[in-house]
Amino acid sequence: MRHEDDRLTTPACGVHVVVVGGGFGGLRTARALSTRRARRAGLRVTLVDRHNHHTFQPLLYQVATAGLQPQDIGISLRATLRRRGVAVRVGEVVAVDAAVGRLRFADGGTLDYDRLVLAAGAIAEDFGVPGVAAHAYGLKSLADATTLRNAVLSRFEAASAAPGGTEDGVLTFVVAGGGPTGVELAGALAELVDLVVRRDHPELDLARVRILLLEPRDRLLGAFTERSSAHALEQLQRRGVEVRLGIGVARAAADEVVLTDGEVVPTRTLVWAAGVAASPLAASLGVPLAAGRRLPVDEHLRVRGVRGVFAIGDLAAFPAADGGLLPQVAPVAMQQGSVVAATLVAEVTGQTAPPPFAYRDKGSMATVGRAAAVAELPGGLRLRGLAAWVAWLGLHLLMLVGFKNRFGVLVSWIWNYATVDHAARLILDQREAATVETSNGWVRRTWAA
Amino acid sequence: MRHEDDRLTTPACGVHVVVVGGGFGGLRTARALSTRRARRAGLRVTLVDRHNHHTFQPLLYQVATAGLQPQDIGISLRATLRRRGVAVRVGEVVAVDAAVGRLRFADGGTLDYDRLVLAAGAIAEDFGVPGVAAHAYGLKSLADATTLRNAVLSRFEAASAAPGGTEDGVLTFVVAGGGPTGVELAGALAELVDLVVRRDHPELDLARVRILLLEPRDRLLGAFTERSSAHALEQLQRRGVEVRLGIGVARAAADEVVLTDGEVVPTRTLVWAAGVAASPLAASLGVPLAAGRRLPVDEHLRVRGVRGVFAIGDLAAFPAADGGLLPQVAPVAMQQGSVVAATLVAEVTGQTAPPPFAYRDKGSMATVGRAAAVAELPGGLRLRGLAAWVAWLGLHLLMLVGFKNRFGVLVSWIWNYATVDHAARLILDQREAATVETSNGWVRRTWAA
Repeated sequence: MRHEDDRLTTPACGVHVVVVGGGFGGLRTARALSTRRARRAGLRVTLVDRHNHHTFQPLLYQVATAGLQPQDIGISLRATLRRRGVAVRVGEVVAVDAAVGRLRFADGGTLDYDRLVLAAGAIAEDFGVPGVAAHAYGLKSLADATTLRNAVLSRFEAASAAPGGTEDGVLTFVVAGGGPTGVELAGALAELVDLVVRRDHPELDLARVRILLLEPRDRLLGAFTERSSAHALEQLQRRGVEVRLGIGVARAAADEVVLTDGEVVPTRTLVWAAGVAASPLAASLGVPLAAGRRLPVDEHLRVRGVRGVFAIGDLAAFPAADGGLLPQVAPVAMQQGSVVAATLVAEVTGQTAPPPFAYRDKGSMATVGRAAAVAELPGGLRLRGLAAWVAWLGLHLLMLVGFKNRFGVLVSWIWNYATVDHAARLILDQREAATVETSNGWVRRTWAA
Repeated sequence: MRHEDDRLTTPACGVHVVVVGGGFGGLRTARALSTRRARRAGLRVTLVDRHNHHTFQPLLYQVATAGLQPQDIGISLRATLRRRGVAVRVGEVVAVDAAVGRLRFADGGTLDYDRLVLAAGAIAEDFGVPGVAAHAYGLKSLADATTLRNAVLSRFEAASAAPGGTEDGVLTFVVAGGGPTGVELAGALAELVDLVVRRDHPELDLARVRILLLEPRDRLLGAFTERSSAHALEQLQRRGVEVRLGIGVARAAADEVVLTDGEVVPTRTLVWAAGVAASPLAASLGVPLAAGRRLPVDEHLRVRGVRGVFAIGDLAAFPAADGGLLPQVAPVAMQQGSVVAATLVAEVTGQTAPPPFAYRDKGSMATVGRAAAVAELPGGLRLRGLAAWVAWLGLHLLMLVGFKNRFGVLVSWIWNYATVDHAARLILDQREAATVETSNGWVRRTWAA
């Protein structure tokens, strides 16, 4: 019924579709909307994001461990979309006025829409654990990743500056959450220590380094098979990661983390990979929310109870076959984006709407380190070790948007693997921008031959 | 006489040489000191810098204009020096206790030395112009460059968010200082607007963009010949840069700059390239300082009046042939570093000390933009235009330390030139690290094939 109600009344004067969020779902939607046929039918598209770039989140952990440069996995939205005639608005949406079809931005600006697609994604969820919001590092944005990288590298510099210093946990790294993010970050940290820190800091006793991975449930990678979980556990332990199953964070402070079993772990570096919740934008619509503060949607991804607004990806609560909700993963968002775009194009061009959305699971992958990964593909195909790792590398390269980025990642990976080195280990702190430099300056540009 | 006094009394127990500053001068010194012969003679070397990387300052303006990634011109000190047995200490030196031979760090730590080489460089000098320290952007560090890049790109986003907005100077960029830094930055800004912004922001009226270059003296590139100055002026004006000769900054505020001729220029982006002064570390020695707060040194770069301490580069006041002081440029620092290293190695190995330092000027270069530069080489050889630009490109590539960096710059330059694009235009703001992301998140790693 709503389907009928939503039919555009004045397609002649053109239809403005606004997509909020430049992640996997939003980008897919904007691209699928910008067809020549749709443009001819008067469909205009604007993509809104608070950043001027798409963030390839699956590789954030490699930026956080100095394996990749931030720019390797950040894609300029304007550069990617300008050829497709998609307008870009960089700004933070703080409210949706669905009654009049208007977005309000933090800078006071507004943007009117005829149809809205919410793809604002998810944010870290601390589940109310005291101190996490204040003291834990997140891993959701490039800023998160570079901040964590600076912190990790600075810990080793601090330890080197005070050799044999008191064991104050400066070299203890705690990762909360045993999903792919936590597993991959813990593995990458162990690799950073073993391959890079060992050579860069010969003065350090690496026995002081501790990497704890906490998983409240009884196994890692809960969404994978038990064999994959066991493989990941074995590979992490072989790399020196202390995996604590059935253990979570009870409380976090600046210099320690208290575990749910009461143990007090002195540390200055807690990384939160334990969960996410839908963007606060979902709540701003004022409709009843589903689990994880996600927006209830119908079979065409329309937000129930809000005229002309669609929701996809982490923001949308779409029922899964198992009775729960679809996972908050990239392929769900991308498949939903394609369907929403097709639905809108059909509305504008007067074609028949596509069938209701149905998710096609393409499998799962997670990597533990060099030549170590798990992959679970459709048809029961399971890969472990080198084969899974190679598949993981290739797939991620294919996923990366834009030749330059893919090329940059390829160069970095080849370099890191060939030299067993990490080239991205610069501590670049924006907050230093105004402070004194100790490196050499110059006034006139002259050179020794 | 001091030469005699300084001879080491106990070379048998080893000599610890500490170099403060990982710029061109300090890096050259540390490398020249780490010879097998010197090590056998018991010479140990520690390089101290407040960053964990060397910054290739001559290309900072390209990072600030999104032509290069910060990592392209930042070189890990540990990676560069570890093979040479040079220890690295990352920290900020706040005081030198020459009486006992001890450095004090901001973090409270200390480091003892037998011989000290100060290569801490220079900092921006505002000459007491009101508001500059508070409101101007500097260009001395990678943090400066990325902060300026974020600011410049954000200005265009702000203008696009409010198309036809009131002319509040959001698209006015003021560069103070017509030396190589100012000239190159102004030229690169004009290029960024012409090649990138024009395509990324089709909704913007680029007639609103103003780039002002202020030079208090009567010509640009004062250290170059008049013909070179005229060429740079013509090239900049052809690119749309408003060059104001004989004009400086009288006062700066958050939203405007008042020029020395009384004109009020509304702008949110003032870049200070008008001058530098020696690092405050020079003053901490407590000896009378020369012009520019630089340390007076003897013919062997020993700081006059301070036992066992050398000073090189921007920090040192070494008399020039014209009666003034040697310019604060990279080759001076590097040549001085080589001489100081040779002097110290001679002390340790008991060889005869090298002759007094004498500067050999190898010429000057500055680039205005694509295929436009000026080069003045020894023997009166003058290059302009494409030839000078190609020479500039090659020389800077050769100057870059480390294959990976040189390769990264080469790839970026080829990419930028071939695609007439700038790939580094991401706005990466560390301060966002804790805020909400609107891009797509995930919990389980799954992929569409």
